[in-house]
Amino acid sequence: MSKIAVIGCGLIGQSWAAVFAQADYEVAMYDASAEAADRALKSMETRISDLVEFDLLDASLTTEILKRITVSSSLENAVDDAAYIQESGPERLDLKIEITQKLDTLAANHVPIGSSTSGIIASRYCKDIAGRQRCLVVHPINPPHLIPAVEIVPTAWTDQRIIETVNELMINCSRETIVLKEEIDGFVVNRLQGALLEEAFKLIGAGIVSATDLDKAVSHGLGLRWSFMGPMQTIHLNAPEGVAQYVDRYGGMYRNFGMGDYAAIDWVKIVEENLAAELEEKTPLMDIADAQVDRDRKLMALLRHKASIRSNT
Amino acid sequence: MSKIAVIGCGLIGQSWAAVFAQADYEVAMYDASAEAADRALKSMETRISDLVEFDLLDASLTTEILKRITVSSSLENAVDDAAYIQESGPERLDLKIEITQKLDTLAANHVPIGSSTSGIIASRYCKDIAGRQRCLVVHPINPPHLIPAVEIVPTAWTDQRIIETVNELMINCSRETIVLKEEIDGFVVNRLQGALLEEAFKLIGAGIVSATDLDKAVSHGLGLRWSFMGPMQTIHLNAPEGVAQYVDRYGGMYRNFGMGDYAAIDWVKIVEENLAAELEEKTPLMDIADAQVDRDRKLMALLRHKASIRSNT
Repeated sequence: MSKIAVIGCGLIGQSWAAVFAQADYEVAMYDASAEAADRALKSMETRISDLVEFDLLDASLTTEILKRITVSSSLENAVDDAAYIQESGPERLDLKIEITQKLDTLAANHVPIGSSTSGIIASRYCKDIAGRQRCLVVHPINPPHLIPAVEIVPTAWTDQRIIETVNELMINCSRETIVLKEEIDGFVVNRLQGALLEEAFKLIGAGIVSATDLDKAVSHGLGLRWSFMGPMQTIHLNAPEGVAQYVDRYGGMYRNFGMGDYAAIDWVKIVEENLAAELEEKTPLMDIADAQVDRDRKLMALLRHKASIRSNT
Repeated sequence: MSKIAVIGCGLIGQSWAAVFAQADYEVAMYDASAEAADRALKSMETRISDLVEFDLLDASLTTEILKRITVSSSLENAVDDAAYIQESGPERLDLKIEITQKLDTLAANHVPIGSSTSGIIASRYCKDIAGRQRCLVVHPINPPHLIPAVEIVPTAWTDQRIIETVNELMINCSRETIVLKEEIDGFVVNRLQGALLEEAFKLIGAGIVSATDLDKAVSHGLGLRWSFMGPMQTIHLNAPEGVAQYVDRYGGMYRNFGMGDYAAIDWVKIVEENLAAELEEKTPLMDIADAQVDRDRKLMALLRHKASIRSNT
């Protein structure tokens, strides 16, 4: 059985421990505050029993899973023999530099050092570190044990084998990985969320819609399809001839929203260069009608699910 | 029993007919092409039996519901005695002007005329129409019988009572209404989608991420919460002290994404003016911890649902 070190025992660290332990890894947790580490260990039970309640985990496995998670008395002990290190310390550049430097000194050469940071690209904290080729961001979405998406964000000098190792490890932990080809502030998840929020603040600030109604536009509208199908697959299925036809039909409409500078990207060019081909690889044009039927069946199943949740609460 | 006229028998018109008939309205469909109208009527059976299959409709009601939907031989017959008109014709300004003019001549004075248009604000097609005070956009999300969100977009001269009547009628039809206070191109749903798509095209076009991985960032990440909670409620619950603290903590991060011109909205000002108060009305700061627990329980229920769907397909 392989071991993973989780450094930092806050909510994110605890959540990671639950993810790794469920995937049969031994988890060594460490926090500079021994008290925080003990608290974390105690809170694991609630986290795990919640998963059982919702049939996300077999009850018979809980004892075994909880046994796999231990608190290490030192950073050195935590990383000793670990196959991977998930650093989940505070979001401060100086502290990221300090802890990554220490981890690089303590851990064996080939061990990837991933950081849970949501806001600091790895090149900023690891550029002067000897083992910077094994450093990268491995960003979960809160709460990590419930949301499968994980962003893997390498620096320009991260070793390709390190990226592949971490990607395989995360997939092995039932994570859905988003592998960025280069660093960018905000990565993908927060940039998409930021773009939507910026428009939301604009509409609410201008008095065009209330926050309550805007929320309905997503929770009873856009968010339904997006819970099982991303935005690109969504538009690919929104025209009989796929994404190219969608952009041809509706691209002009989006241009005309008068969002100012912020309608500067050439959608047609991107579709022609690569996007249509990529989306058609998954859903060829001849399969779009079937995929639409499948989408509507998933929508109906989701509506039934939401109705059952409402009647239970 | 009250009657609704559905003008235009394409996919949107058919879907509206299913919505209205389920809410006990008699539905009179009309299409300039008699053939299209007949085809529509036949396709209603599949639409309704799909709903039964997914427990969204009681099987014993189907015959009665289908009986409520009829095809009218003329526009005049369709709107005769109707309490509401849902126009779902082609997306062309000249045709919208022509049909709205005709409907205004034929229908009784107090009857609201809603248009399903996704791209043409009502003032553009009704400004020269005598009864323009009863014209407004009532925009569904495709497919309307499965997605509950409906945008109600009045013009500057739409009568307040007309807006309220349509809003109540839509709520009575189990729709989740988004009532805009003034017209804006793209309304709310497509502007939010457009903002997210613009950023998505930017990231894909720059080669930072594949469309497949970007889709995962939504379908296994952002989209999970958004399927039961809008983006503003989401950020309100993402800090112990609510939206004001969220913007204080993370506003700077979003500013720093370097999205150029497009980070020009003053989030703090909007929070202080109205947004925090509105969100706290629904979820007071003292209830945020409980609301977070509820959110995580809904997330777990959604994950269980998604797992059951996967294993069935």
